[in-house]
Amino acid sequence: MNIYDIIEKKKHSQPLSEEEISYFVEGYTNGDIPDYQASALLMAIYFAGLDKEETFLLTKAMLESGESVDLSKIPGIKADKHSTGGVGDKTSLILIPIIASLGLKSAKMSGRGLGHTGGTIDKLESIPGLKTSFERDSFFAIVEKCGAIIASQTANIAPADKKIYALRDVTATVDNVSLIASSIMSKKLACGADALVLDVKCGSGAFMKTEQGAQELASEMVGIAKRMGKSAKAIITDMSQPLGYYIGNALEVKESIYALKGNGPSDLMEVVYALASCLLTSVGMAETDEAAEEMSREAIASGKALDSFKHMVEAQGGDASYIQDESKLAASRLSLPLKSSKAGYIEAINCEETGLASLASGAGRQVIGESIDPGAGIVFSKKIGDPVGIGDEIATIYSSSEEKLMAAAEKLALAISVGENKADPPKLILGKVE
Amino acid sequence: MNIYDIIEKKKHSQPLSEEEISYFVEGYTNGDIPDYQASALLMAIYFAGLDKEETFLLTKAMLESGESVDLSKIPGIKADKHSTGGVGDKTSLILIPIIASLGLKSAKMSGRGLGHTGGTIDKLESIPGLKTSFERDSFFAIVEKCGAIIASQTANIAPADKKIYALRDVTATVDNVSLIASSIMSKKLACGADALVLDVKCGSGAFMKTEQGAQELASEMVGIAKRMGKSAKAIITDMSQPLGYYIGNALEVKESIYALKGNGPSDLMEVVYALASCLLTSVGMAETDEAAEEMSREAIASGKALDSFKHMVEAQGGDASYIQDESKLAASRLSLPLKSSKAGYIEAINCEETGLASLASGAGRQVIGESIDPGAGIVFSKKIGDPVGIGDEIATIYSSSEEKLMAAAEKLALAISVGENKADPPKLILGKVE
Repeated sequence: MNIYDIIEKKKHSQPLSEEEISYFVEGYTNGDIPDYQASALLMAIYFAGLDKEETFLLTKAMLESGESVDLSKIPGIKADKHSTGGVGDKTSLILIPIIASLGLKSAKMSGRGLGHTGGTIDKLESIPGLKTSFERDSFFAIVEKCGAIIASQTANIAPADKKIYALRDVTATVDNVSLIASSIMSKKLACGADALVLDVKCGSGAFMKTEQGAQELASEMVGIAKRMGKSAKAIITDMSQPLGYYIGNALEVKESIYALKGNGPSDLMEVVYALASCLLTSVGMAETDEAAEEMSREAIASGKALDSFKHMVEAQGGDASYIQDESKLAASRLSLPLKSSKAGYIEAINCEETGLASLASGAGRQVIGESIDPGAGIVFSKKIGDPVGIGDEIATIYSSSEEKLMAAAEKLALAISVGENKADPPKLILGKVE
Repeated sequence: MNIYDIIEKKKHSQPLSEEEISYFVEGYTNGDIPDYQASALLMAIYFAGLDKEETFLLTKAMLESGESVDLSKIPGIKADKHSTGGVGDKTSLILIPIIASLGLKSAKMSGRGLGHTGGTIDKLESIPGLKTSFERDSFFAIVEKCGAIIASQTANIAPADKKIYALRDVTATVDNVSLIASSIMSKKLACGADALVLDVKCGSGAFMKTEQGAQELASEMVGIAKRMGKSAKAIITDMSQPLGYYIGNALEVKESIYALKGNGPSDLMEVVYALASCLLTSVGMAETDEAAEEMSREAIASGKALDSFKHMVEAQGGDASYIQDESKLAASRLSLPLKSSKAGYIEAINCEETGLASLASGAGRQVIGESIDPGAGIVFSKKIGDPVGIGDEIATIYSSSEEKLMAAAEKLALAISVGENKADPPKLILGKVE
């Protein structure tokens, strides 16, 4: 077997065998196959495609290139969630406490923000004292004790994916559904959960720009998870405006606490409940989506979800008084309101531009390793469809630096458009795959 | 401008601009663009294609990456020929003397053999004393004195093509008509001739396996040459059996001398005359192909073409007594006849297998730099369509080594098939592009 023949085969649109896919993944990961042959194969895959079998085999080979977390010693059903990444998306911070309070275990590993999207780990770390990095034993102990943890990736998960993704990133071979699905799933499956829910974002601020693309990606991922013996469902959600009103780190935790206290904005809660329903029905804890949503609403109304969040934050070393009194989660000291220069209706809030504005304010990072300003970000007062008068505030930007504040304001102004006619708020849940 | 955007553009089948193509060619040649991005672009080109304009621009950029030979100081019309490479193809050794005797100048640069195809330089060097490497001044002096030279490439010709070809060779991106055409033409145009004839081989022993592919390649190359202000024509010739009866180095020179003495085999002469006609008509020295062929036949009948060859060989330091008495061009000392095990008709002589048998006999080289056995090779006594009886000799193999002789015989036996029904000899000239 040699890589030249594998490239040649894919070039002629022939399906690759399990041995050929493993040969590529192992050979590239250990350095036997050079970058230039790997990138030629990836471009051939971009054009000729991978069928479902090949995509599954690629996922499996990348998964097996590293460690997997074995959660089998933790009693009960372990659930996990993945989002393809959006702006203002703090659903994990609300969903995990809800399902934990209902008895599902969650050993969630999350990432940090990069570019225009934030990361759950960065957000959580705005709670003073909270740690996200744990030794194996403490990690398991926290899940056993309070049913949930949200930690940063520590295990050597899917190193093949890491290396292949880095190459795709510089060779314009990222945007292929099979490659995206296998990349996400190789990492997600390594985290060891029994039940998975996937939130595939669609729109200006998302990886997938079209509904069709998002639907395909969702189907691919659910298919892979099921072949691996997992329960899995996916929803496709709109990302043509930010989710909720708060964007940033401390700011998003604050909105999550509002939500856990029963005061979440309707769009955010709609997505949270849809995700929870997917998990609760797929593991048989609820018969219907309606019954599942009722359970989730009750978890919030009873205060049990908030308690679960508090316990998890405490177990992770965080100061739970910040959960009790979320006003302690301070925004950065400088602020600037963005006001409408004309009367009309909010027509569009471009997500990517908004994410870049948040990044500019100090809430995100341009390159891996940069420090962030936990209190920086944006709080919207309007969303698409809302009426505005001249001089009305649309959003407020927070930052610790005058310069960053101005840069963010400049970008945010470009993200928002006000029109004369009332626009309907975009439909939020665009589809479901089960 | 950056290479990522150029890959992305080609991925979406958009035409690249002159600046983008130059940026890639220059950047890759000087090492600014890494192999893995270049191979991703080449694979995208394989799938998305290059249009005629892009192919021309790529050729031009590769041509301009190195030196060009300036033949303008040599008076008269300078002609050149290129073949995509076949087995037993010694047409240059006959064509160049013919056209030189008719007054066309030829400063031909040729290559050495590699793999299953031979090289004109190796063949010529079987004439004792003959040199193929010259300083610039002597090179020009020989062309001026005897109207022709056949030398090895000395100038730094199209280094971009050299580097890009090496990458294509290991990334399965060789077989694209635009890339093949630009690679060949960037080198050929650097040799400075005014008129070009191209022989695009088609069949089992050739680069292009189908007539359609050969036709496309021929059209691309003629188009590029014309846009560069050259006279150019191409013929598409069959390579489903070796050309002529002799394969090897000294052996092919011997058959060429037979041809220049008026005793060439009909298939070989048909191609030689077709090539000569292309050149003579395209520069206006003949009105019709028929008139041109008549001039070529006369050049041979009168002995003038043979004289031209002798002068060129002498000018290049070769011993012209070997031209006078071609029996001095000795075959290797060991020989083995290949005999038919059944009666019938020669049905097929696979060119690639025959080339590999010749290589095994010692007449070729597997890797660059290997030395060759000038007297090794194969002399056929039959061609497709000829009748054979049991025990009749089909070919004789020559080698200096017993072991190589046996290896060659084993391979050659696989190349030849004898059937019960009379097969028609394949049509030789399959098409013409002008």
